[in-house]
Amino acid sequence: MNEQLKTDAWKIIETQFCKTRVESSESLFSLGNGVMGQRANFEEKYTGESLPGNYIGGIYYPDKTRVGWWKNGYPEYFAKVVNSAFWIGVDLKIEGEEIDLAKNEIISYHRELDMQHSLLSRQVKIKLKCGKEIEINAVRFISLTNIELGVIKYTIKSLQGDIEVEISPYINADVRNADANYDKNFWEYVNSSRDSIQMRTKKSGFDVAWSQACFIDGVEWRDESEKETIRETSQFSLKQQEEKSLYKYVGICSSLNHPAETLIHQAMKVAKEAAQLGFHELLKQHSKAWEQKWYSCDIEIEGDDQSQQGIRYCIFMLLQTYTGIDTRLNIGPKGFTGEKYGGVTYWDTEAYCLQFYLSTSGQQVAKELLVYRYNQLDKAIENAENLGFKEGAALYPMVTINGEECHNEWEITFEEIHRNGAIAYAIYNYIRYTGDKAYLSPYGLDVLIGIARFWAQRVSFSQERHKYVILGVTGPNEYENNVNNNWYTNYIASWCLKYAAESVEFVKNSQPNEFQKLIIKRNFNPTQELEKWKAIYENIYLPYNEKLAIFMQQDAYMDKEQILVADLAVSERPINQKWSWDRILRSCFIKQADVLQGIYFFQEDFDTETIARNFHFYEPRTVHESSLSPSIHTILATKIGDMDKAYEMYLRSSRLDLDDYNREIDEGLHITSMAGSWLALTEGFGGMRIKNDIIGFTPTLPKAWSHILFKINYRDRIIKIKATHKEVVVSIEGEAVDISIYGKTYHVTDHITHLL
Amino acid sequence: MNEQLKTDAWKIIETQFCKTRVESSESLFSLGNGVMGQRANFEEKYTGESLPGNYIGGIYYPDKTRVGWWKNGYPEYFAKVVNSAFWIGVDLKIEGEEIDLAKNEIISYHRELDMQHSLLSRQVKIKLKCGKEIEINAVRFISLTNIELGVIKYTIKSLQGDIEVEISPYINADVRNADANYDKNFWEYVNSSRDSIQMRTKKSGFDVAWSQACFIDGVEWRDESEKETIRETSQFSLKQQEEKSLYKYVGICSSLNHPAETLIHQAMKVAKEAAQLGFHELLKQHSKAWEQKWYSCDIEIEGDDQSQQGIRYCIFMLLQTYTGIDTRLNIGPKGFTGEKYGGVTYWDTEAYCLQFYLSTSGQQVAKELLVYRYNQLDKAIENAENLGFKEGAALYPMVTINGEECHNEWEITFEEIHRNGAIAYAIYNYIRYTGDKAYLSPYGLDVLIGIARFWAQRVSFSQERHKYVILGVTGPNEYENNVNNNWYTNYIASWCLKYAAESVEFVKNSQPNEFQKLIIKRNFNPTQELEKWKAIYENIYLPYNEKLAIFMQQDAYMDKEQILVADLAVSERPINQKWSWDRILRSCFIKQADVLQGIYFFQEDFDTETIARNFHFYEPRTVHESSLSPSIHTILATKIGDMDKAYEMYLRSSRLDLDDYNREIDEGLHITSMAGSWLALTEGFGGMRIKNDIIGFTPTLPKAWSHILFKINYRDRIIKIKATHKEVVVSIEGEAVDISIYGKTYHVTDHITHLL
Repeated sequence: MNEQLKTDAWKIIETQFCKTRVESSESLFSLGNGVMGQRANFEEKYTGESLPGNYIGGIYYPDKTRVGWWKNGYPEYFAKVVNSAFWIGVDLKIEGEEIDLAKNEIISYHRELDMQHSLLSRQVKIKLKCGKEIEINAVRFISLTNIELGVIKYTIKSLQGDIEVEISPYINADVRNADANYDKNFWEYVNSSRDSIQMRTKKSGFDVAWSQACFIDGVEWRDESEKETIRETSQFSLKQQEEKSLYKYVGICSSLNHPAETLIHQAMKVAKEAAQLGFHELLKQHSKAWEQKWYSCDIEIEGDDQSQQGIRYCIFMLLQTYTGIDTRLNIGPKGFTGEKYGGVTYWDTEAYCLQFYLSTSGQQVAKELLVYRYNQLDKAIENAENLGFKEGAALYPMVTINGEECHNEWEITFEEIHRNGAIAYAIYNYIRYTGDKAYLSPYGLDVLIGIARFWAQRVSFSQERHKYVILGVTGPNEYENNVNNNWYTNYIASWCLKYAAESVEFVKNSQPNEFQKLIIKRNFNPTQELEKWKAIYENIYLPYNEKLAIFMQQDAYMDKEQILVADLAVSERPINQKWSWDRILRSCFIKQADVLQGIYFFQEDFDTETIARNFHFYEPRTVHESSLSPSIHTILATKIGDMDKAYEMYLRSSRLDLDDYNREIDEGLHITSMAGSWLALTEGFGGMRIKNDIIGFTPTLPKAWSHILFKINYRDRIIKIKATHKEVVVSIEGEAVDISIYGKTYHVTDHITHLL
Repeated sequence: MNEQLKTDAWKIIETQFCKTRVESSESLFSLGNGVMGQRANFEEKYTGESLPGNYIGGIYYPDKTRVGWWKNGYPEYFAKVVNSAFWIGVDLKIEGEEIDLAKNEIISYHRELDMQHSLLSRQVKIKLKCGKEIEINAVRFISLTNIELGVIKYTIKSLQGDIEVEISPYINADVRNADANYDKNFWEYVNSSRDSIQMRTKKSGFDVAWSQACFIDGVEWRDESEKETIRETSQFSLKQQEEKSLYKYVGICSSLNHPAETLIHQAMKVAKEAAQLGFHELLKQHSKAWEQKWYSCDIEIEGDDQSQQGIRYCIFMLLQTYTGIDTRLNIGPKGFTGEKYGGVTYWDTEAYCLQFYLSTSGQQVAKELLVYRYNQLDKAIENAENLGFKEGAALYPMVTINGEECHNEWEITFEEIHRNGAIAYAIYNYIRYTGDKAYLSPYGLDVLIGIARFWAQRVSFSQERHKYVILGVTGPNEYENNVNNNWYTNYIASWCLKYAAESVEFVKNSQPNEFQKLIIKRNFNPTQELEKWKAIYENIYLPYNEKLAIFMQQDAYMDKEQILVADLAVSERPINQKWSWDRILRSCFIKQADVLQGIYFFQEDFDTETIARNFHFYEPRTVHESSLSPSIHTILATKIGDMDKAYEMYLRSSRLDLDDYNREIDEGLHITSMAGSWLALTEGFGGMRIKNDIIGFTPTLPKAWSHILFKINYRDRIIKIKATHKEVVVSIEGEAVDISIYGKTYHVTDHITHLL
C-alpha cells in the first residue's frame, strides 16, 4: 500500500509533498482525453527530479534502432511516441523569490485527481524567505468535449502581507524524449508568433501547433517569447488575503487532423474560442461528458474501499487513454503517462483491452481497435515477407505504431508469434460479444486468411512425431525463449486455422460477391488452402503429460528442476532483478499465464477438473512478474472455486500502480494491465461469459466484499449486475434480452433477482 | 581466388592499385611482431576509403556496453583493443602536388609482403599533373628483435625532370576506433615534445609514447608539431633519376612495460638507438630472427602453389600475432589487423590456437597461453558468481581481455558455456603434448577444480530421465540457441569432471603439500566434491539416435525439417545474410562443427565407423558459415578416408582471407581460423596425434599434391615429416624419440622411411 495516498472512492489524493516521489506522482495523477495526455508535472518551475511528459496520440518519431548485436530481420527503427511541448508552464516569482517546490518552504500541500470528472487540482501553501505566506491553487483538465483543448486555472493568494507577483505563462517546445536512443532531438522548429508555436517531428514529419490564451483580471502582458518558447509576463500586487487567477487556455492541433499550414491558426482558434466560453462553462461540459462515460461502466465494491478506489482508477485511466474516435490510435502500455516501451500497440490490446472497451464503450469504439489492425494488414504481410514467409502470410508486429515492426529482440520480435493468435481471437471475441458477423466481410476475413496462411507456413511436420510442430517460439511466458511446441502457441495456431476456415465458409455462403473479391485480392485458393489448414489443425502436436494429466507448457518442461515459488527465498525475488537471464530461462518459473492464458481464452474447451489440475500445477510455479499475470489467475481461480487465491491475485492486480507494487511507476503506469483488473472483476468475480450467443454471469464474491455492482454495455443496452453473497440482481436499460445467471436463462425486460 | 593477388610461395603480391580493394589489402598486408601490429595503410596521405589501424597488445579501453534490451548479468562494458597513433605518416608534396593515390595518376603499382622476413614494400610510379614522373619505394617492418620499434625507409625518385619535394614525416595521435559504441575518443593527451608524444587511454589509464627519429641525407627539418600530431617538414630538390630516402625510426613504449613518467624518454631512446644502428643492420637482425622462427615450423606443399602460399600465410600471420613473451597478451580473432569483435580472447585460443603454438613455438610459448587463463581464474569465479554460481565455481568469459566478461548477447554470454570445457581441454592437451604433468600444480589443477565446480552446479537432475541434464545452452553451432542437452557440451562437461577428478588424485599423490595448500585456498573438499563429480559424469545424459546410430546434436534436433545444404538454393546462402535469425534457428542447418567438434577433440573415444556415421549425417547439414568450421571437417574427413571432402574443406579454410571468400576482410583477417588451417594440414593430412604418450602420424595426401613437408616442435626437438603418396620420411633434430607412423612405432635417432 502507498502510504502517501489517501483512500477515497472517487479521488486520488496526496497530502504530503515528498521529493523522492514526485516522478511517481507525476505518473499517478496523469490526465488524458483519449487523443492526448500528460503527466502531472507542476505548472511552475520545478528543479527537483521530474519527468516532464506531454504526448499526442499518433505523433511518433522513428528512432534509429539501438542494438548490441544485429540480427537479420531487425527493424531499422523503433517508432516512439514523442514527448512534446510543455504547455502547462507558469513561471512565478513572488517578492522576487522564484516559486520552485524543490526549494521553497512548504507549509502544506494537497493534490487530488477527481476521477469522476478527470480534473487535477493542487493546493500548496508556501512560506517565502521574506516571511510572507502564499497559497497556490492550480486546477487543470484536458477537455473531453473539445479534444484539442487544455485548460488551467491558476490562483495565487496572499495569506500574510502584501505581495508583488511576477507571472509568466509559457509553452516550451524545446523538449526531448528521455528515452531517445541517441540523445537526438525529435523535433524541429517550424514557426511561431507571440502566442503560438508550430513544430515538426523529424523524419516522420508530423506538424503540431500550440497556442495559449492567457488572462488575469486587470493585467496586461508583455511578450517575452524566444525561438522555441512562447511566453508572456506581467506583474501585479496582491494585498493580504487577496487572490488573483490566471486562466490559461491552450489549443493543440496537429497535422493528423488539419493541413499543416493552418495549424497555428487552428490552435489559436481553439484557445480563443475556449477563452470566450470561459473556464466554468468548459469545465461544466467536460464534467458532464465524463459523468456520461461513467454512467454506463462504473463498478461499485462495497466493503473494501481500497478495492473500490483501485477498480475505479483502472477504469478511469483506460477511459483517459482510448476513446475510439480515431482508428490511427491504440492503447500504449503506458498510455499517456510515460515514454517507456515506445510504440503503442502490443498484443495487450487484443488479449486484455478489447473486452474492456467492448463492455464499457460499446461496439463502435471496440471495432475501431479491430479496424486499426485491418488497416495494417498489408504491413503485416510485408513483415512476414521480411522473415521469409510468402503468399500473403501475415505476421503482425510485436510492437508497432504504424503497422511496421519496432521491436528488436530476436526471441521476441521473431519468436513471440502467438501475438498473431490474439489478433484473430479478438475478431472472434468481438463477433461473439456483439453478434456483428458482418464484420467478417470485408474486414475480419481478410485478416484471418493472412494469419492462417502464416501459421500454415510456420508449422513444420515432424517425421519423428508424425505431427505438425511449431519450433523455436516464445510463449506468453517470456521467461522461456526459443522453445519447441509451446502449448499455448500450438493451441491458438490450430484454433486460428479452424476459425479462419469456418469464417471462409461463412462469408462464401453469406456474401459470395465480397468473397469473390477477396479471392482475387489475396490470390486465395479456398479449396487447396482450407485442405492444408485442416490437415494441420487436425494433426497438431499438443504437449501433454499423461502422468499429471495436464498440458505441458512446452517440450521438455519436465526436464527442469521442479521447484515452487513458495520455496524461493524472498531475497531472490523478483527473479527478473535478482537472477541472470539464463538462470531464469532454465528454471521452471513462469512469468505470466501461459498454458493458463490459453485455458482462459478457450474455457469452453475444458472441463473444470482439467482447469483445476492445470491451475494447481502452473500457478505455484508462476512468479507473476508481468503486470498482466494476476488478473488471468483471478479469473481461473474464481472459476475453480479457489476464492482465497482469486482475491490474493486480484489485490495484486487492481492496485498495482496505486500501491506501486514494483517501485517503477515513476516511468509511467501499467495501462493495459488495468484492463486485466477489469476482466478479473467482471469475468472473474462477475463470471461474465458469452455462450451460445447468450451473455451469462456467475457472480462469486471475495469474503471481504458485501456486494459488487457493475454495469456493462452489451449490444446497445446497459446491463447492471448487483451481486451479494446471497443474491444477484440483474437490471437492464434498453431492449429486453436473454441473460443467463448461473446457467439459468432469464428473459430480462427490466430486472430479475436470482437467489444463490 | 583473389584475382588481384599473384601466387607466390613466400610472398603476397599485388600489382594493381584498386580503389575498392584498398581496405581489404590493408588487412591482407598487415604487419605485427606479437606485441604490436598494424594494417597496411599507406604512409602518405590517402583520401580514399581506408581504415587506419595501429594496435598495441594489452592496451584496451572499456567501452560502455551498447545493447537494445538489457538482461541481468550483462557486463557494463566491452573491452576493446584501442586503435592508436598513426605512426607511419609521411606527407608528401612534389612540385606542389599532394601525393594521394586516391587522386594521383598512377603509372604502376607493386606491393609485396615478404612472409619469410615480415617485410612490407611498395613501389608506385606516378605521373604528376605537371607531366613529370616520380617513383616511391616504401619499405617497412615492425622489429621482431626490438619489440618497441617500427622502421620505415621511404625513397623518392625523380623519373622525369627535376622536382621540388616537400616531405613531412609525422605521428598523429588523434585517432579513434571505428567501432566505438558511442563515437567517443578513447584517448586523452598527456604530453608532447618536438619528436615525441604521450597519450593515455581514458578509464583504463594505459600510457603510450611514440617518438620518431627522421633522417634524409643532407636535409634539415623544421618543427610543425601541433597538439596531437608531431611533425617535421623539409624541402629538397631532386634532379632527373636522382633519389633520396627518408629513414624513419619510431619507438613505441607503453606503461605495460615502463613507468608512465619515463615513457617519452624510453620511446626517444628506442628511436635514437635504432637510428644509430641504421636501417640495414636493423633489417638484418629482424630478418634473421624471422628465418629462425620459420626454421622450426615451415610447411612445404609440392604440386599446389595456391595451397603452399595459403598455409605459409596462415603460419606467418599467427607468428606475427602472438609470440608468447607476455602472459597479458593473447590471440584476438582479428589479431592486429582490425578492430572488429574487440576483446582478444575467445575459446578459439584453446580450441584452435594452442596446438599451433605448441608445435611451432614450443612449450614455453604455449604455456603462457595457459597461464593467461590461470591468472584470470579469480575473475572467472567472480563471473560465475555474477550469474548465481557459488563456492568457487569458475566460468571463463566468452570474450575478454583482462578476465572480465565483455560480451552481451544472453544466448552467447550466459549460454555458450562449452568454452569452459575448451579451457580444461587445453590443459589436458598441453600436458599430453609436452608431458609436463607438473603444470597441474600449482597452475592447472586450480583451474580444473573451478571449472569442475561450475559444471557440477550447472547440471540439473531430470526426474523424467533419471539422468543429469544441461538445459539452456548454445553449443559451438551458434545457429542453435538456448537448447537442451547439446551433446558436445554434455560430453565435454562430463569429461571435465572426470579429468579434474583424475588430476586431483594425481596432485594429491605427487605433490601432497601443494595439494593441501590448494585445499585451503579454494576451500576444497576432495571426498565430497569428487563423489558428486563422479555421480554426474557416470550418469550424464548424452542424446543419441538409435535408428541412425549417431549422437544427437541436442534434444529435439530430429523434430526439425531435415533438409541438406545441397538442397538449398545458392541464392539463399550464406543463410546468415539471407535468412532472419528465427528461421536459421529452427532450421537443421549447422554453422560449424558441433557434434563433430567433440568427436575431433576426443577421437580416441570413438571407432572410425562411428565417426563416419556422424560425419555423414552432420557434414551435409553444415553450412560452414564460421571460419572455424572447414578445418575440423578436413581432419575428420581425412580420418574416415573421404579425401575429396577433406580437400574441398581444406581449400575453403586455408585461403579464406587470401581469396576473401566471405568478402569481408576489409574489417580484418580471421587470425584464429588460420590455426584451424594449420591443424587441418598437420592433424588432418599429416594425421598427427598423441596416443599413450607417443606422437604419431598417418599422412594422407590430397591427389593434387605430390608431397608435403612439415616441421613441428615436439618436446624440445624438431620433427620433420616429409610425405608423398608412396612413403613417409621422418627425421629429427635433437634427442632420439619414439614416433608412430601408421601405428608402427619407430625409435627415431636421425631419420626413418616408412613405405606406404
